Amino acid sequence: MTDIEIAQKNVMAPIADVAKKIGIGEESLELYGPYKAKITMAELRALQEKARDPQKRGKLILTTAVTPTPAGEGKSTVSIGLGDGLNRIGKKAVIALREPSLGPCFGVKGGACGGGYAQIVPMEDINLHFTGDIHAISIANNLISAIIDNHIHQTNALRIDPRTVTWKRVVDLNDRALRNITIGLGGRTDGIPREDHFCISVASELMAIVCLATSISDLKKRIDNITVAQTFDRRPLKFGEFKCTGAIAALLKDAIKPNLVQTLEKNPVFVHCGPFANIAQGTNSVNATLCALASGDYVVTEAGFAADLGAEKFMDIKCRAAGISPDAVVVVATVRALKMHGGMAKADLSTPSIAALQKGFENLSVHLDNIKKFGVPSIVAVNKFVTDTDEEIAMLEKLCETKGARAVLCEGWAKGGEGMEELARAVVDITEKTKADFRYLYESSASFVEKIRTIARQIYRASDVEFPPSVLKKLREYEEMGYKELPVCIAKTQNSLSHDPKLMGAPKDYIFPVRDVQLYSGAGFVVVLAGDIMTMPGLPKMPAALNIDIDDDGVISGLF
Amino acid sequence: MTDIEIAQKNVMAPIADVAKKIGIGEESLELYGPYKAKITMAELRALQEKARDPQKRGKLILTTAVTPTPAGEGKSTVSIGLGDGLNRIGKKAVIALREPSLGPCFGVKGGACGGGYAQIVPMEDINLHFTGDIHAISIANNLISAIIDNHIHQTNALRIDPRTVTWKRVVDLNDRALRNITIGLGGRTDGIPREDHFCISVASELMAIVCLATSISDLKKRIDNITVAQTFDRRPLKFGEFKCTGAIAALLKDAIKPNLVQTLEKNPVFVHCGPFANIAQGTNSVNATLCALASGDYVVTEAGFAADLGAEKFMDIKCRAAGISPDAVVVVATVRALKMHGGMAKADLSTPSIAALQKGFENLSVHLDNIKKFGVPSIVAVNKFVTDTDEEIAMLEKLCETKGARAVLCEGWAKGGEGMEELARAVVDITEKTKADFRYLYESSASFVEKIRTIARQIYRASDVEFPPSVLKKLREYEEMGYKELPVCIAKTQNSLSHDPKLMGAPKDYIFPVRDVQLYSGAGFVVVLAGDIMTMPGLPKMPAALNIDIDDDGVISGLF
Repeated sequence: MTDIEIAQKNVMAPIADVAKKIGIGEESLELYGPYKAKITMAELRALQEKARDPQKRGKLILTTAVTPTPAGEGKSTVSIGLGDGLNRIGKKAVIALREPSLGPCFGVKGGACGGGYAQIVPMEDINLHFTGDIHAISIANNLISAIIDNHIHQTNALRIDPRTVTWKRVVDLNDRALRNITIGLGGRTDGIPREDHFCISVASELMAIVCLATSISDLKKRIDNITVAQTFDRRPLKFGEFKCTGAIAALLKDAIKPNLVQTLEKNPVFVHCGPFANIAQGTNSVNATLCALASGDYVVTEAGFAADLGAEKFMDIKCRAAGISPDAVVVVATVRALKMHGGMAKADLSTPSIAALQKGFENLSVHLDNIKKFGVPSIVAVNKFVTDTDEEIAMLEKLCETKGARAVLCEGWAKGGEGMEELARAVVDITEKTKADFRYLYESSASFVEKIRTIARQIYRASDVEFPPSVLKKLREYEEMGYKELPVCIAKTQNSLSHDPKLMGAPKDYIFPVRDVQLYSGAGFVVVLAGDIMTMPGLPKMPAALNIDIDDDGVISGLF
Repeated sequence: MTDIEIAQKNVMAPIADVAKKIGIGEESLELYGPYKAKITMAELRALQEKARDPQKRGKLILTTAVTPTPAGEGKSTVSIGLGDGLNRIGKKAVIALREPSLGPCFGVKGGACGGGYAQIVPMEDINLHFTGDIHAISIANNLISAIIDNHIHQTNALRIDPRTVTWKRVVDLNDRALRNITIGLGGRTDGIPREDHFCISVASELMAIVCLATSISDLKKRIDNITVAQTFDRRPLKFGEFKCTGAIAALLKDAIKPNLVQTLEKNPVFVHCGPFANIAQGTNSVNATLCALASGDYVVTEAGFAADLGAEKFMDIKCRAAGISPDAVVVVATVRALKMHGGMAKADLSTPSIAALQKGFENLSVHLDNIKKFGVPSIVAVNKFVTDTDEEIAMLEKLCETKGARAVLCEGWAKGGEGMEELARAVVDITEKTKADFRYLYESSASFVEKIRTIARQIYRASDVEFPPSVLKKLREYEEMGYKELPVCIAKTQNSLSHDPKLMGAPKDYIFPVRDVQLYSGAGFVVVLAGDIMTMPGLPKMPAALNIDIDDDGVISGLF
């Protein structure tokens, strides 16, 4: 059966019943049909307060992975399965995940609700529109653009230099034709011509902002602080100067509230906000994590791409902003992915190869070392594929042991929570026996150059960082503007520990080149661009959209 | 109190209770919070079937108006108040309205939920996002664009001529900078450069399609039929050829289902789809009207702008597509608007003037004559303003009498349903005493030229129509392609009975110039452009967005 067929065969529990399991009453839910709900603002506040008390909140388990390969790792499947597994062994576990973007859904990757018997449901709704959060963020983002261009067109009292507008329009699709455009053509009544660029909604600063904001005031402060352009005399212009923040925040009044859904095994899952993990922080909202921490004894959450991107940003950006930290990290690996890191071609992956596995293990090894630098214990989740041999799995377990990490075979895809009980027990065990001694990789007080160099050397294993003079100048300006304390969010390829997507395995001792930097003063970090980062993906020759259909009863097929 | 303050003071009934009043059980609702719901697909089908039986459906009352002026007419306020008034006098009345677009909401006009004590609620939600229908239509529209541009970029197996793409991207905002743009810049990997244009979502063909489709199959057939471009050898290309209709329809799976909300007096209102009334049909969905007709003894619905645009399209496009017809028409007029049509400046409207009223009455008189041509009886609703004098109102009543139309003073804005009881009684009276003898203005079998000429002469009072040779050629081509039976949807200014916005009052004997035509083969009509039609409005110097705010409890202010 396909994922969607498994999901459709499943009988869901009313979401109010799922909420009740974690102490959230019906009066604290805003229902979106019987199987989806948002948490009311009042309940959100109560849960935030509880989660901020270290005595009252649950343990936080972060799922991350080895460097992605075309072989696939199944991080969401492991996260969801682990949540189910923890519930099966008697723990009150809650999962917190990102919302899927429509771009990948219709492009190459498909949806993002897990797979097999480790899925969240209703998967069609979660993958398509869900409760409208991404649409709300998209239109709020584009209203900011319309307000800016209207201001330039009407009076330009703020003296905005149209050549300096950095705030981009968005659409939540893969649409390469919108990457580079010219707007405002047509003459006197049709605006001021300028170059513009669309990015996919999930790569936007506003997505990052909603993901970090914990209240409407916090949201408004962040929107006020967005740097959107410069004036003709090069003064950075914040959106607050347009006096239109209230309308933008009003559009986001529901988007800021976490959504609750369920796994196939009827366990609670908060699914909220979906920032990309290359250009932004790559993890679900602070609000969703706080709700989960307040309502579960164990919280399973994940961060996008591999540990060099998702986990580092989770620790240094999200944990710092939210005042939380993980108690353990689960690193997802597959025999197939490691064999690719060891040099095997995708077509050959079904052939057993201990040698390729050993060689590719270097990638996992680096990620395990990196996680130690944050003072958090880790476990390796070996996501089982049918082609894996017993010898390969035994070898992988042995290799992990040499790094002091336990490797646990996971069969969530085929068996749901039952196939994840061993990992669940291992997670409980490690959190009970090993107290995390969490620390950030860098201090807020360090300079931007130091922050970037620390990440590049310690996480990416570069020997040094190359900063163009223009970047050094911009970083100095940001520091002078009072932003020195901000963390950095490095935008680099997800396909390598380095900046170069071709370097698989465990590259080291190279020069990490920074191309440009951009101040996300609303979100509260500095984006550091290294290599070509896609903020607007394109569709492939045969988009996933071509497989999707719907019948007269509204039943969807071909969504994966 | 402002509209939003009145709305927020009101205590809503759970929407399930409101639905129960019209025989719709909770199992037939998909709740979006406690006060909004969609009708399930099963219930929609049951209601459609009932509504198609003339013995079982309620009476249909269409609200239309005199030609709009900056003085405002309050058509929605009258429609909502009339629904409440009918319920107050013991009739089971249901209202069917369009969904507001975010463009006007942040631009000049504000929201579209009525005013004073004749409002629909929750007005903040209905005005902002609502149940996500317009967002779903926007993203589905833009996925069609992405699929087209991706096809051109990848292989262009269909040999699409990029210069001929007529399918436009949309955003549901007033954003003039997107009216004329160049896309696909940047080089080899960033698409094929071409000219493009955004329009506001509510002006799109896809909005018109969702508004007319009665099932998923019907929707898919219409999407298949959309003409999106031409090939290099000038063959019109339909979207069906891209084999991606299923994904587009899947995105619209919920958008096709009507939404139920309530008036301040807790009466049921279907609010669904919002096509513009200049470029499209300007009235709520067929599905919503059918649901209302099946569940109410009286259904009050409205069509955008004045009777020359909204009412004509309601009769000739919507009624034809849905197999329904109105039993009576209510024409909304105000003393102030008629005085403007009589030549008074807006600043002087508070000064009593019988002369200006008499002169301006000509506009109302033409609309009353026009409605007679459809064989439907009409009533004039005089929407009372505080500056109206008794003499002016008496004169207006007398003038209407000369046309054989009863004029009824309406005080829905100030008094809610209580101020609308007299109009409600008059509506019941006219539908009981006068049987409508409904007829279309033109037959489907007439040529496009005949159809356009009939509307221009009979409704717009032009002496003739000017067709450029290129338009005649296109119309002939459409007929040869097999579209001869389609109705025409004339896109012209709303500010005059003619094509010229400066001609107030009752212009006649002029030449009506057709500029261009466009085949909406998906929606099922031919758009006839006369004059400059704005399909992407711009923001004013001081956008309404600047007044909107939200507090930490999520309470919105300044939305009107």
